[in-house]
Amino acid sequence: MAERGFPEAEFHRRRDALQGEMARHGLDALLLTSAADVFYVTGFLTRFWESPARPWFVVVPGTGDPVAVIPSIGAALMGQTWLSDIRCWDAPFPGDDGVSLLADALAGLVPEGGEIGVPMGLETQLRMPLADYADVAARIAPRRFVDGTAAVQRVREIKSEAEIDRIRAACGVADRAFARVGEYAAAGVPLERVFRDFQRVLLEEGADWVAYTAGGAGPGGYGDVISPAGSRPLQAGDVLMLDTGAVRDGYFCDFDRNWAIGPADDTAKRAYGALYAATGAVLRDLRPGMLARDVHGQFIRELAARGTVPGGGRLGHGLGITLTEWPSFTAHDTTVLRAGMVLTLEPGVEIAPGVIQVHEENIVLRADGAELLSARAPEALPELT
Amino acid sequence: MAERGFPEAEFHRRRDALQGEMARHGLDALLLTSAADVFYVTGFLTRFWESPARPWFVVVPGTGDPVAVIPSIGAALMGQTWLSDIRCWDAPFPGDDGVSLLADALAGLVPEGGEIGVPMGLETQLRMPLADYADVAARIAPRRFVDGTAAVQRVREIKSEAEIDRIRAACGVADRAFARVGEYAAAGVPLERVFRDFQRVLLEEGADWVAYTAGGAGPGGYGDVISPAGSRPLQAGDVLMLDTGAVRDGYFCDFDRNWAIGPADDTAKRAYGALYAATGAVLRDLRPGMLARDVHGQFIRELAARGTVPGGGRLGHGLGITLTEWPSFTAHDTTVLRAGMVLTLEPGVEIAPGVIQVHEENIVLRADGAELLSARAPEALPELT
Repeated sequence: MAERGFPEAEFHRRRDALQGEMARHGLDALLLTSAADVFYVTGFLTRFWESPARPWFVVVPGTGDPVAVIPSIGAALMGQTWLSDIRCWDAPFPGDDGVSLLADALAGLVPEGGEIGVPMGLETQLRMPLADYADVAARIAPRRFVDGTAAVQRVREIKSEAEIDRIRAACGVADRAFARVGEYAAAGVPLERVFRDFQRVLLEEGADWVAYTAGGAGPGGYGDVISPAGSRPLQAGDVLMLDTGAVRDGYFCDFDRNWAIGPADDTAKRAYGALYAATGAVLRDLRPGMLARDVHGQFIRELAARGTVPGGGRLGHGLGITLTEWPSFTAHDTTVLRAGMVLTLEPGVEIAPGVIQVHEENIVLRADGAELLSARAPEALPELT
Repeated sequence: MAERGFPEAEFHRRRDALQGEMARHGLDALLLTSAADVFYVTGFLTRFWESPARPWFVVVPGTGDPVAVIPSIGAALMGQTWLSDIRCWDAPFPGDDGVSLLADALAGLVPEGGEIGVPMGLETQLRMPLADYADVAARIAPRRFVDGTAAVQRVREIKSEAEIDRIRAACGVADRAFARVGEYAAAGVPLERVFRDFQRVLLEEGADWVAYTAGGAGPGGYGDVISPAGSRPLQAGDVLMLDTGAVRDGYFCDFDRNWAIGPADDTAKRAYGALYAATGAVLRDLRPGMLARDVHGQFIRELAARGTVPGGGRLGHGLGITLTEWPSFTAHDTTVLRAGMVLTLEPGVEIAPGVIQVHEENIVLRADGAELLSARAPEALPELT
């Protein structure tokens, strides 16, 4: 298992990288509000984000260290991070829930007329009340909020070796858990019991928590990949898929595995074989400098060449502090792939109307190509009997 | 166990209640983007919200049924809900990630010059890219986005009997899991192993997933209630606290329990006794018509009268589809408490600087007072040996 947490040097590197991108984009500060961005800059790790009651703010100035503006309930935990400037209010406080404290912090850190980057683009959300955001914007004028998405994403998308180690550890948890599915999944077992046992085993194998599980099961394939489990028992002829975002030390894995319940039919086996081969081709050819849409294109070609109908939607994405990160392997994403990106390869095929099969592996892109972080799926569809 | 899901009549009731509040607030529609609001209106339940990649929209018009404007990946699952008008795009799509589809839907459902409520206030977040929100606002002019927080909160805060049954079932899961802590927590066991086993047992006792666990352990008390677990082993003289938001059928419980590791000292016992008694007094006196701040005030008085130092922050809150909901038992929250609200009573005391003890129970407020949903905590601090 990788060591817990990060040395302070890791956070200095992140600060410096963000400030470099900020300078390139003409930003005088960044205002960060999401669990992922705050964790990235500070190391502040808690499941308390599950409570929508309170906003949390970190300001990264153009030079110098980040400043946390947070509810008092987080003072002790934030006090254990590398940050020294931590400003608190007793939230939730109707009428001024951190608004004046945040506005004062921004006014003190950003020159008049300065621009403050806020992630506003694709795959971002502002995690604070919208009315309070407008209020802060009015208070800090003539300073302005502008889109800071690119500055954050160009930095976060390149993982350090320490981050890659964490994601590899999370993948190892899932590898070990997937190897044990035969202990509890079999014909006659309701899918909801399989989901519950899968989460239990992920914890036993070292997950700190299980932020995401999904899956499906049905004759030859399943209907979608985001549904919660129902009470239908597994049946001979089903293909079962389990997918997970298990978290270890604040980092996710995100990959799935498929099994046939009893002997698989030829259609399911062919779909599996095509997905395995298409993944192999991308694993072989992926290089820095390609665009995200190139990966999508290769998947579509490889799957079609094997006589299968490629699935719609994105066929993989970034991964790390959240279950999914940019870029997206769609026909439209022109993000340049670079060494240090951690990515999922997630091709899918449609076997029949409303019946799909999806594979997924996690990799880190190196200068010379893809390095697997998940153990490679079996070459042929495994059977549970 | 309560039955899964809800009959369609439950969603008709919710629609009607929202439209009633919308009429009172002069709103021609509501735009909902959060997992909780979307689930409330539609029954659409998935852990896929863990992926920040895609926004999801539900529009509640002034009359008629809600309209879902969602990524295609959710079409199959949303198709199983009671909604019939489901409009999809292939997300994530750079440049127009549902923006034109949402703007068209709003333009078709809301008259020119109409007002569309968006939750913007305390304890809300807009779950879509901020730049896209501004884009939609520009496209739908002269229709306007206005604050719809009150219309949503006045409806969601009153739980139906079906919802109360779900929360009671989630509380039952935690009750049974807390009763088994002695199976794995003892002096010498690292706190992180205790957390992992606690989550495992919550699953075994019927949680669909464990969205939240927190806790702490230290001599006589703990430092905060939001930290993840560390590797420090439990020691004689510690007070251990475990807190959970286990989810069943989309509804949370949120309460904690405390244990002494070996014999407890008198300070820890006195703190426990004061918290137990203060909770008992509020359980006895709570009535509809009181304000949220009245509960805070009673806790402060009851704790001080027993010679303890009341903790800061809020001393309880709403509960249901999310781990925490409004109102907040602070000195400042003037929300009127009404029958049908599900609430946590969460008093805390400071035993020494940086050492606290916190109790929590879940209740539903009835016309004649509080009805417990969690089993009452033991009257005296239990010991694990």
